[in-house]
Amino acid sequence: MDNTFFKKFAPKEPKFFPILNDIAAVIVSASELMIEFATHGNADNAEEYYTQIKTEERRGDTLHNQIFQELNNTFITPFDREDIHHLATQMDDVTDYINSAAKKVFLYNPKEMPEGAVELARLIKAGADTIQQAIRSLGDLKKSRKAIFEHCTELHRIENQADDIYETFLIELFETQKDGVELIKQKEIMQELEKATDTAESVGKTIKTIIVKYT
Amino acid sequence: MDNTFFKKFAPKEPKFFPILNDIAAVIVSASELMIEFATHGNADNAEEYYTQIKTEERRGDTLHNQIFQELNNTFITPFDREDIHHLATQMDDVTDYINSAAKKVFLYNPKEMPEGAVELARLIKAGADTIQQAIRSLGDLKKSRKAIFEHCTELHRIENQADDIYETFLIELFETQKDGVELIKQKEIMQELEKATDTAESVGKTIKTIIVKYT
Amino acid sequence: MDNTFFKKFAPKEPKFFPILNDIAAVIVSASELMIEFATHGNADNAEEYYTQIKTEERRGDTLHNQIFQELNNTFITPFDREDIHHLATQMDDVTDYINSAAKKVFLYNPKEMPEGAVELARLIKAGADTIQQAIRSLGDLKKSRKAIFEHCTELHRIENQADDIYETFLIELFETQKDGVELIKQKEIMQELEKATDTAESVGKTIKTIIVKYT
Repeated sequence: MDNTFFKKFAPKEPKFFPILNDIAAVIVSASELMIEFATHGNADNAEEYYTQIKTEERRGDTLHNQIFQELNNTFITPFDREDIHHLATQMDDVTDYINSAAKKVFLYNPKEMPEGAVELARLIKAGADTIQQAIRSLGDLKKSRKAIFEHCTELHRIENQADDIYETFLIELFETQKDGVELIKQKEIMQELEKATDTAESVGKTIKTIIVKYT
Repeated sequence: MDNTFFKKFAPKEPKFFPILNDIAAVIVSASELMIEFATHGNADNAEEYYTQIKTEERRGDTLHNQIFQELNNTFITPFDREDIHHLATQMDDVTDYINSAAKKVFLYNPKEMPEGAVELARLIKAGADTIQQAIRSLGDLKKSRKAIFEHCTELHRIENQADDIYETFLIELFETQKDGVELIKQKEIMQELEKATDTAESVGKTIKTIIVKYT
Repeated sequence: MDNTFFKKFAPKEPKFFPILNDIAAVIVSASELMIEFATHGNADNAEEYYTQIKTEERRGDTLHNQIFQELNNTFITPFDREDIHHLATQMDDVTDYINSAAKKVFLYNPKEMPEGAVELARLIKAGADTIQQAIRSLGDLKKSRKAIFEHCTELHRIENQADDIYETFLIELFETQKDGVELIKQKEIMQELEKATDTAESVGKTIKTIIVKYT
């Protein structure tokens, strides 16, 4: 008996939360690798670090595809679908920006790691941890509402700190770096790191929107 | 008696139009400040101008959040909701680009303001005025349909003018500016200004779409 | 008798497919012109090539508007509408990136065409051909399902090749090009070309999503 139809519409245990948790874990791993890379990276080991981070980025892609498949096979309202998809996409974007930063360090081979790269990488890691906690709490919205809001505020605070570091970096870079090529290298690497914290904040905003809608 | 339920679904006077008007007013103020900054800006007063523009940008953010709250608390169809949200977001983006331009003048501290920055700032102001008129007219769609279409055409015309200025600027910059660092500074500042006029045109397109749908 | 109401809701022969086919044809033409430009372009003929590509880009815009009008006048579900609109927009974006690359060659006037530009242009053309075949097959989904999936895989493969070329180009550029201004010119031109292949891959992903939904 072909029960595809019933399978498709039968209420299922939603598999979204485990996958969202896995995506959060990927951001954490990628950010940890980025701290290592920013701290110890040089021309000799850059490809090795980049390859490790790229592996995380691909894991993230696979998980993002899984969420997408799962959403298409589960009977939920289009608005829930849209929200979960949007959240997963933004979380994946954080890893993508970490990966872009790592890729640029490898491809551009700057004379030195940009001043402040380690600090930004640490803030990304702090954001990744916060996202992970918020996602874990999403499973029990009623109970964790307040805690989740605090995580979102924390992501905003982290982004502000990252902004300050990035701005200080830019002012100094444009004042002191007279070599245009080196300036481009350093600026673009830091830009990707800053975008990672930016996107982590956006994850917080999306979570907040979801909470407001459903509680 | 807890009448939250009734409150939420009772027809309300929509508060969207006053907020959209306020967002339009913020774009006008920010663009006026940008004209001042492009005309009189220098290393000494850059932070002061930037701070003033940033204040407008934050006002815009607050208003954008208000629209969002209002949309979540009002019983309207998802498609209307989406359109109004999209419009408010794009309007807010115009202010964001003005703010980014101002921020880059402050952070990068170029040797001189880019040739054409004042002209672009004036076009942004012209666009802001046009958006303001179009938003005011949205309150009475039937009567103002033709006028609103003209405002949208005007936004398109302004964008074309901005494009010409930006292209002339780029050709000259790449021909004459041999200092890579200074070239990056000037190019990026002008790029943000050009994106502001671009986004003002997108606001026009969104307004047009809304009119076509609802009249 | 005013039959506007009936006209609007009567089932119509969908005109989307012919327009999507036309948009695909525009990408093919633009990519062919870009191969020519990358192969034979110089300071004397750059404006001429750019003008030709711009003409294609405007044709694409007109077609994109037509799809949009058609969607607003046809009675289909919002989700179909959204999918078709998204597909048309992404296809149009491929042409836009080709146009941006051409524009930058014209505006920036680099000392020489970037190493690898011809190869990237050829990959864009291969992607454009693949998109054209996929769109043609969309008209008969049931029969062509497998073929369309293969076209999407091909678009992914092309994007990977383009990535490799772009990365090799960047490594070499940052190693050898000491003139910051020339580096910016070459980098930005190649970036637009790379984004064209990127977006062609996204077209493939969107087509895949549509197929999964409707078959």
